[in-house]
Amino acid sequence: MLPFSRVAIIGLGLIGSSLARAIKAQMPTVRVTGHDASDEVRATARRLKFCDDVSDTPGAAVIDADLVILCVPVGAMSAAAAEIAADLPADAIVSDVGSCKEGILTALQTALPGHTIIPAHPVAGTENSGPEAGFASLFKGRWCIITPPADAEPTAVERLSEFWRRVGANVESMDAQHHDLVLAVTSHLPHLIAYTIVGTASDLEDVTRSEVIKYSAGGFRDFTRIAASDPTMWRDVFLANKDAVLEMLQRFSEDLSALQRAIRWNDGDALFNLFTRTRAVRRSIIEEGQDDAAPDFGRTHE
Amino acid sequence: MLPFSRVAIIGLGLIGSSLARAIKAQMPTVRVTGHDASDEVRATARRLKFCDDVSDTPGAAVIDADLVILCVPVGAMSAAAAEIAADLPADAIVSDVGSCKEGILTALQTALPGHTIIPAHPVAGTENSGPEAGFASLFKGRWCIITPPADAEPTAVERLSEFWRRVGANVESMDAQHHDLVLAVTSHLPHLIAYTIVGTASDLEDVTRSEVIKYSAGGFRDFTRIAASDPTMWRDVFLANKDAVLEMLQRFSEDLSALQRAIRWNDGDALFNLFTRTRAVRRSIIEEGQDDAAPDFGRTHE
Repeated sequence: MLPFSRVAIIGLGLIGSSLARAIKAQMPTVRVTGHDASDEVRATARRLKFCDDVSDTPGAAVIDADLVILCVPVGAMSAAAAEIAADLPADAIVSDVGSCKEGILTALQTALPGHTIIPAHPVAGTENSGPEAGFASLFKGRWCIITPPADAEPTAVERLSEFWRRVGANVESMDAQHHDLVLAVTSHLPHLIAYTIVGTASDLEDVTRSEVIKYSAGGFRDFTRIAASDPTMWRDVFLANKDAVLEMLQRFSEDLSALQRAIRWNDGDALFNLFTRTRAVRRSIIEEGQDDAAPDFGRTHE
Repeated sequence: MLPFSRVAIIGLGLIGSSLARAIKAQMPTVRVTGHDASDEVRATARRLKFCDDVSDTPGAAVIDADLVILCVPVGAMSAAAAEIAADLPADAIVSDVGSCKEGILTALQTALPGHTIIPAHPVAGTENSGPEAGFASLFKGRWCIITPPADAEPTAVERLSEFWRRVGANVESMDAQHHDLVLAVTSHLPHLIAYTIVGTASDLEDVTRSEVIKYSAGGFRDFTRIAASDPTMWRDVFLANKDAVLEMLQRFSEDLSALQRAIRWNDGDALFNLFTRTRAVRRSIIEEGQDDAAPDFGRTHE
């Protein structure tokens, strides 16, 4: 028994188009309709055929759906929800894939009063954007966090959970506020730091940009990957999850100051102790299947 | 014509053992002798046979070498040089692979007066350590920076450059002080930041360690790789390149404060502009062959 039979995806970028491909791969009888605000993206989506139908309007995409998933940047969720309101079937479940959940729940409930809204967040992605960057196995082995409102119907939550399991994800449930705190540290702060250091390195007077690029294999290049992520998506995330991001940033800055002091005062033991402790975290991530065990992320050395 | 015929490697960890393997692969007629201060590492090196001979003492390893390369942590360079002084042939060139060059040049010149010393730094590595982690292609396509003292003999510099080209590296030359500034931004600062954020994430009260690990694919896991690097090596690097690291850290902190302020005051344009600029740096690194073009570092998504 499939949890849904007609899924509409609004927003056909990396995540939306990966989801469409994953549904076709894992649940081939499900009818997938899609819409994107961009003419160009719709044309690409039609050419790549990962949806059964690509609609010119959001309303036409959702008109007979039993699940609608909004895959647009966090700041565009409210407008996307308003655009489907008139055509949304009364019994459809509306979900999304945004990286911060508390604000989105409020936005969707306001735009779609009376509808069943169950936000979710698949913790998966790459640094690439757009419909051509998507692929069917993106969610395999990754976690999808579902953040149902307190009064959500358990069967609706279970149907959405089953849907994500079918496309390869592990599913966990938590409240939206806790999600936003967890993701501030596992995703938002890392992106903020990566964007910052890539900016810092680009702005030096005494080290040329060409030198930064040539010698980036010393560690810097690792940060450039997530600093190449979609600018609109990430602007929206930082503004939407402001409080949790600022809180984590404050803690990071304090810890960085402590390390700075240890260097200035030649406290080798403090450095050594921290550097030993952090090794164990990497081991746990690999043991839990959340990263490649191969050295250097499995990069080819040829 | 090979640049050297008898190479001695002191320190048989990731870099030393990779170098031995690369020499055997690319210059099979060169005789490679090795030594490591650890009984266990010497036993492993003998079992893995990447050297023609593993000596119990550093002196025995260098006694007929025409090139000696010190592959020990930066803080151990001076002692390693002192240990080979009595047995070092007068015409041998002494080099190293350390990540900061100004202090090492002074240390080696002090320990080995009258000898030809030409420091070098192959900008390559993985997060793993020890003789079993090494592999022959580690230096392929990476840059090796040679930092000859002002009075170095050009033929000696050229022989060492040719040696590194033979094991697959691109070679660049610059003075030691500039090297230390460049590497502070492309390698040392990234490691410092990665160690810090992994420490910050481990110390939270409201987010469990298990949550940090489960949802690390949101970006955090990228930082854990270099934060799993060898603690002794990195303690030594930060203490040896203190001034340049503190200077880069100061710039980074200022930039981070600016971004923090932009988030607090909802300045979406400032965020968007930075995030757009950093994307171009990633593209250049890939174009220059310094990282995988494959999304997500080429991680498997299965």
